[in-house]
Amino acid sequence: MEGKRIDTDIKGEVLKGQLALFNGPGQAFELREFRVRPLQPGELLVKNVYTTICGSDLHTFCGLRKEPSPTVLGHEIVGEVIALHPTHAGFDLCGQQIQQGDRITWTVFSSNPQSTNSLRGIPQKGDDLFKYGHVLVEEPEVFHGGLGTYCIIKANTGIIKLPENIPLSIAATLNCSVSTVAGALRMAGDIKDKHVLITGMGHLGITCAAMCREAGAEWIGAADIDPRRLDEALGFGADEVFNMNGDNSKLLSVLQERTNGKGIDVVFDMSGSPDAMEFGIKSLGIGGFAILIGAVFNTRSLLIDPERVIRNLLTIRGLHNYNFADFKYAFDFMKCNWEKYPFSTVVEKEFSLEQVEEAFEYAIVQKPLRVGIKL
Amino acid sequence: MEGKRIDTDIKGEVLKGQLALFNGPGQAFELREFRVRPLQPGELLVKNVYTTICGSDLHTFCGLRKEPSPTVLGHEIVGEVIALHPTHAGFDLCGQQIQQGDRITWTVFSSNPQSTNSLRGIPQKGDDLFKYGHVLVEEPEVFHGGLGTYCIIKANTGIIKLPENIPLSIAATLNCSVSTVAGALRMAGDIKDKHVLITGMGHLGITCAAMCREAGAEWIGAADIDPRRLDEALGFGADEVFNMNGDNSKLLSVLQERTNGKGIDVVFDMSGSPDAMEFGIKSLGIGGFAILIGAVFNTRSLLIDPERVIRNLLTIRGLHNYNFADFKYAFDFMKCNWEKYPFSTVVEKEFSLEQVEEAFEYAIVQKPLRVGIKL
Repeated sequence: MEGKRIDTDIKGEVLKGQLALFNGPGQAFELREFRVRPLQPGELLVKNVYTTICGSDLHTFCGLRKEPSPTVLGHEIVGEVIALHPTHAGFDLCGQQIQQGDRITWTVFSSNPQSTNSLRGIPQKGDDLFKYGHVLVEEPEVFHGGLGTYCIIKANTGIIKLPENIPLSIAATLNCSVSTVAGALRMAGDIKDKHVLITGMGHLGITCAAMCREAGAEWIGAADIDPRRLDEALGFGADEVFNMNGDNSKLLSVLQERTNGKGIDVVFDMSGSPDAMEFGIKSLGIGGFAILIGAVFNTRSLLIDPERVIRNLLTIRGLHNYNFADFKYAFDFMKCNWEKYPFSTVVEKEFSLEQVEEAFEYAIVQKPLRVGIKL
Repeated sequence: MEGKRIDTDIKGEVLKGQLALFNGPGQAFELREFRVRPLQPGELLVKNVYTTICGSDLHTFCGLRKEPSPTVLGHEIVGEVIALHPTHAGFDLCGQQIQQGDRITWTVFSSNPQSTNSLRGIPQKGDDLFKYGHVLVEEPEVFHGGLGTYCIIKANTGIIKLPENIPLSIAATLNCSVSTVAGALRMAGDIKDKHVLITGMGHLGITCAAMCREAGAEWIGAADIDPRRLDEALGFGADEVFNMNGDNSKLLSVLQERTNGKGIDVVFDMSGSPDAMEFGIKSLGIGGFAILIGAVFNTRSLLIDPERVIRNLLTIRGLHNYNFADFKYAFDFMKCNWEKYPFSTVVEKEFSLEQVEEAFEYAIVQKPLRVGIKL
């Protein structure tokens, strides 16, 4: 059965919705009504249902990450399909048909699938790159973020239709944090029987712990400087937690003990802290992998001893965003495991779109894993 | 037909040979006669025929690398089989039968093939590691380097039987420089159609250029601070050479031009210079690989911007020595290509064992790609 394709705009209906405009750090969000522009070939119109505030949204809010403004933030989004342009194939990445009323999430980016980077498995750096929740709001291009009533899904965006039983607050994190962690595991190679250290136990860190557990890790150490985060990590599959506020040289010997003197196989840095990254690389044994994800903002340079990298055959890899396979892996992981780990506790508080200012303030001050915006 | 296995020692023959003992930096080599000890299970006795002096031999000679002394240097060796212990399987890594009189070369290491690192493809860091040309001369363990009449090949050493047409001076470099370069290419992934930069055009660098050319590289840039080395690089497949003595920021824009603004795909550092390594990493485009090999001595730490590593999905990998597959790849490469590139010019001057002091002085002062010792 073919999905019913409603082409609102062509029928001339005037559809309007709200946006929470972000005008720059230190400025209040501005709620404004905009008209939804007609869909273009390959596009979908979605009514946003739920958005979680990601760490990078907070970075923009605080001025740590620069984005053009006014913009509409929020890229961890679940939406309900309102209309498909007649040229849309009508299928998601898993081959499921997409129809009006379906609940979906989608990649944070779209790009030209024929560009060099897309063809080599890096579509997040492909040509004609577009990123949801990151670009200028400039009529008629306004509905492209999670903090608004609607979102227009561009052609060449990866879409996944969600089963009804996955809670919205969990599904919303799929297309950013969970998929990036899936990419991190892919870049680290086989995790089975490995000794893993994760530095930074925010949403990326706890997801990484659970994903490594499911991938068969032998031992998972979790490090942070916040005792509350370390407590949470234990629920997500970490075997042992380490507070890095202390003397880290002692921690290095503890890790040597835990690995029978062989050193850590894979370290994932989700913190973005240069100290944590340097520590992680030092903890690696022969053939070890360091996967860096957290430092998507300006930090001091890392000091790395090349002789040690060479003699110990170390690999250091950076990952920004993820590819379509990672997105599918993330979905499959969460579909099977959202009840096994306490993912339902990740969103500590929910807000409405009108309360968006309050939601960001709460996220900054209380540092929950996530706050949710119900739309 | 089974190889004839002569078991000299069991017959009680007293076999003696010369060694050029290295007693430490600044001290003259000492020529001494030693007795060959009986072979143990799995071992071979080889009469050394030709040894090339590797950069790491020079590092030890100058005190830049510390080794226990007295030692016998030289690990790039070709030898002729004198005897096999009856327990030796009598085959090389390629499945060719090994007999008395065969000309062979062998891996710079032996290690326990059942140890964890061996089983994960890193036999050069396996348990019970032994390295030729690196260990203490202590009777009866004396013949384990290239600067002597004989070498006892330990069990679990990878052996390759050489065809007669490959010149000795070329065959000798197979088991160190050429194999390490083969490992570097393996760690960099597919080289086909890639833009490659090589920093440091010693023997590793020129071999890397030729190997990348044969692996289908689109463009190969070669950088060094020695104009003579850069001239040589052109003969080994480099498309363009760059003197890094000048303003390297200009060089960075040249590389951007050569790659249509995309940046270098793979950089190999063979120089060990922190400046060159940092420059190479800066030259990489999205998804780029930096393979570090040269810095097998103490240098300053590298300064690396983690945000750039992350946003550009960079990979930085170190390699020390190589595995058995790399050794075979190196052999196959050289078997097919030794006449296509000017490898026969690599050894600029040959010496006898009695002239070893002179050979090292010549290597230090004249900086040829290699000097050879005819034994």
